[in-house]
Amino acid sequence: MDKRNLSMLMDLYEMTMANGILDSEMEGTIAYFDMFFRRVPDEGGFAIMAGLHQLIEYFENLSFSEEDIEYLRNLNLFDERYLSFLENFKFECDVWAVPEGTPIFPREPIITVRGPIMQTFLVETMVLLTINHQSLIATKSNRIVRAAEGRPVLEFGSRRAHGYDAAINGARAAVIGGCVGTACVLAGKDFDITPSGTMAHSWVQLFDSEYDAFKTYAQKYPDSTTLLVDTYNVLKSGIPNAIKVFDEVLKPMGKRPKGIRIDSGDITYITKKARKMLDDAGYPDCKIVVSNSLDEYLIRDMLIQGAKVDIFGVGERLITAAREPVFGGVYKLVAIEKDGKIIPKIKISENTVKITIPGVKIPWRLYDKETGKAIADVMTLGHEKIDDTKPYEIFHPEHTWKRKTVENFVAKKLQVKVYEKGKLVYKSPSVNEIAQFCKEQVDKLWDEVKRFEKPHTYYVDLSQELWEQRSELLHKHSK
Amino acid sequence: MDKRNLSMLMDLYEMTMANGILDSEMEGTIAYFDMFFRRVPDEGGFAIMAGLHQLIEYFENLSFSEEDIEYLRNLNLFDERYLSFLENFKFECDVWAVPEGTPIFPREPIITVRGPIMQTFLVETMVLLTINHQSLIATKSNRIVRAAEGRPVLEFGSRRAHGYDAAINGARAAVIGGCVGTACVLAGKDFDITPSGTMAHSWVQLFDSEYDAFKTYAQKYPDSTTLLVDTYNVLKSGIPNAIKVFDEVLKPMGKRPKGIRIDSGDITYITKKARKMLDDAGYPDCKIVVSNSLDEYLIRDMLIQGAKVDIFGVGERLITAAREPVFGGVYKLVAIEKDGKIIPKIKISENTVKITIPGVKIPWRLYDKETGKAIADVMTLGHEKIDDTKPYEIFHPEHTWKRKTVENFVAKKLQVKVYEKGKLVYKSPSVNEIAQFCKEQVDKLWDEVKRFEKPHTYYVDLSQELWEQRSELLHKHSK
Repeated sequence: MDKRNLSMLMDLYEMTMANGILDSEMEGTIAYFDMFFRRVPDEGGFAIMAGLHQLIEYFENLSFSEEDIEYLRNLNLFDERYLSFLENFKFECDVWAVPEGTPIFPREPIITVRGPIMQTFLVETMVLLTINHQSLIATKSNRIVRAAEGRPVLEFGSRRAHGYDAAINGARAAVIGGCVGTACVLAGKDFDITPSGTMAHSWVQLFDSEYDAFKTYAQKYPDSTTLLVDTYNVLKSGIPNAIKVFDEVLKPMGKRPKGIRIDSGDITYITKKARKMLDDAGYPDCKIVVSNSLDEYLIRDMLIQGAKVDIFGVGERLITAAREPVFGGVYKLVAIEKDGKIIPKIKISENTVKITIPGVKIPWRLYDKETGKAIADVMTLGHEKIDDTKPYEIFHPEHTWKRKTVENFVAKKLQVKVYEKGKLVYKSPSVNEIAQFCKEQVDKLWDEVKRFEKPHTYYVDLSQELWEQRSELLHKHSK
Repeated sequence: MDKRNLSMLMDLYEMTMANGILDSEMEGTIAYFDMFFRRVPDEGGFAIMAGLHQLIEYFENLSFSEEDIEYLRNLNLFDERYLSFLENFKFECDVWAVPEGTPIFPREPIITVRGPIMQTFLVETMVLLTINHQSLIATKSNRIVRAAEGRPVLEFGSRRAHGYDAAINGARAAVIGGCVGTACVLAGKDFDITPSGTMAHSWVQLFDSEYDAFKTYAQKYPDSTTLLVDTYNVLKSGIPNAIKVFDEVLKPMGKRPKGIRIDSGDITYITKKARKMLDDAGYPDCKIVVSNSLDEYLIRDMLIQGAKVDIFGVGERLITAAREPVFGGVYKLVAIEKDGKIIPKIKISENTVKITIPGVKIPWRLYDKETGKAIADVMTLGHEKIDDTKPYEIFHPEHTWKRKTVENFVAKKLQVKVYEKGKLVYKSPSVNEIAQFCKEQVDKLWDEVKRFEKPHTYYVDLSQELWEQRSELLHKHSK
């Protein structure tokens, strides 16, 4: 459990709003906020939910120290009554969330927070920051892992991560998305992920010759000898020296080499040559590990061209999600309670994609009973139920004449309850369990949704009642 | 001072190498490692050094707990003698660094670590991670600030940062690069940066009308009324309601509004209209703050088209350096000491850009005495001095026939000593001091180097002696 207190990691406006609401007519309001995202990064067909465990750690530690209060007092913005509210802060919200590892789609609420308006204001940045970051990396990782077509992918990116949490929680998210290990020792320790790694170029440079470097390493680690062969020249020096050491050091001990690693040059060309050299030398079981600014597109192209790769190490382009490093989750007010009645709230915008879906919503996923595949997601209002014993009509949320009746299906709610009036009522699975769950859930998506180029749009539909509520509010506000 | 112990935040190979070197002939070796980068992100002309203060915090906390040791023991990779070395670990290296805020260029050593080889191995990831991250953001920030042509830029990106450190230290780096403030309260508190912020859309949605929302806010904060005017419709609703509230609430109190904020729509078009409406209503002093996925290119285009913007809030594209989110600093062995003699080490590569510059090097910056502008950087060997009382010949490191004699110049060493045999001998300036230093140093660069499109290449030359040493090693290894 991360014990850092990140309660002050928020945008100042959360404080000015919370302070501003005190003594106003809205002070006692109960509010509902949804976190959702608008677009899948990299034009992908779906994203992977991640970060909930760290969000829970934040909620568990949520409190303001004397030092925090003193700092805020000196900003000369806040009332004493507000500062004393912070001093005695106790988290009292209800929180629902889509479990980590679940494929998620634009516009559906992946986190819902309900509680006193002042409290719901104060958690905005941390909800977004935590879920945006890990979902970004889990989504990217899942793309890369799918491109590798069954070959193990290792996370190697700590050095290019955006800070320490990005390295540690990024490795966690990468494993949720499908990576089988990480180079990061601390992530390995914190999350029970297998750390892996052998040598850097500096090891090879250090010795008088590449051969000496390899020999010393093999003698020390005869059970896990993976040699980095590209410090000088892969085909002319690295592989011949590696084979020599396998023959001279490992063979007499009855040991087999684990692998060689290549970190530069034209991987496709070099691995084909390297594979042949290793096979000819009697080491067909010696794995070829490659790294060097890889991502799903490079991996796909390499494999199409017949690169002989057994394991991929993926660094900077995974840990930064380099092609599109922003997961654009937002946190929007969707309703308030007044005298026990839920009043939906909408945000209009000149950018139509920024118009929100008002109301307290439940997202469902409908699965085909026969194939087990996911058919569509549907959002209903809180009191609605989807009865999966009967046919159910879904329709396109914009082109409402596009309709389809679903039969022989199972409807499952996507969210679980995480907090009940500030009390934690959910236990996170382990990272390895989440990774397994993720794999199973991604398998339930049609291949058409998983394509990198122009994937089929998986629909998140609105129930008739929700659609009508939204239309009504839109019309009201456009007047 | 960050008290977290991040000593285990490393790639596993650092451990396997350090353990591997024990009992080998290389055990007592003193090694020199350089951190340098190969390419400026976004095809820019220069980068900005940042992150040294956090790197110092890491060095100060560097130690391994019993729990760490136990975890490592259970990996079944390490000797007991190595684990006991970790248990008693005491940092003993010398460290030189380019001060934060300095413009830096490819291939020059921005950090140099000298010490017992095992220790120099173990700090690799943290050196890179810390400096790569903050230099990336400081560099991006500086680009954005230059595009804003004197208008203040605020950092608004916490929610899209890659984790908590990325938000906090990212805000710090953004200020080093030139942002004048941040929305992030915790960064504001930790680094004495001004936090700023007023309201989100949820504030406006919460109330029965936009007018009520604005009115409540203005009554609460008459001295800092900045209203978010795009929840429903900027020109038809937001600005008219804002003006009404300025007239009805602020005017009778003798107060002036601070500003309005626009976060969507066509900023160029809307701000021109908004400016006119505010001016006509008697509020020419009301600032227009804009945000919405801005970066240096969007800002430049807006200003070219005459957008009326007073303050920019820049979020996701700054905090993730979205166009190119990787700062590719590397940490390479450049020399070892043997019997008191320095032996340079090189790494060759099929990618010629990955070939290192061997040897213990000193980077210098030459300034023109008359203009104060930087002319070029030069790397010399450790024992060399650049005598700036005499003409000095510099030459292109690849096209060595391109030569130039520099006269009437001042030569300054770029690095300062930070650690002396493990003892901290440097005191970091405050973030605001670093930001000021950065501004002064960037002013010393020619405009040609600062262009976004095809900037002039600022040269980092090698001294004759260093060039010869490198050529010799290259020839030796290519045989």
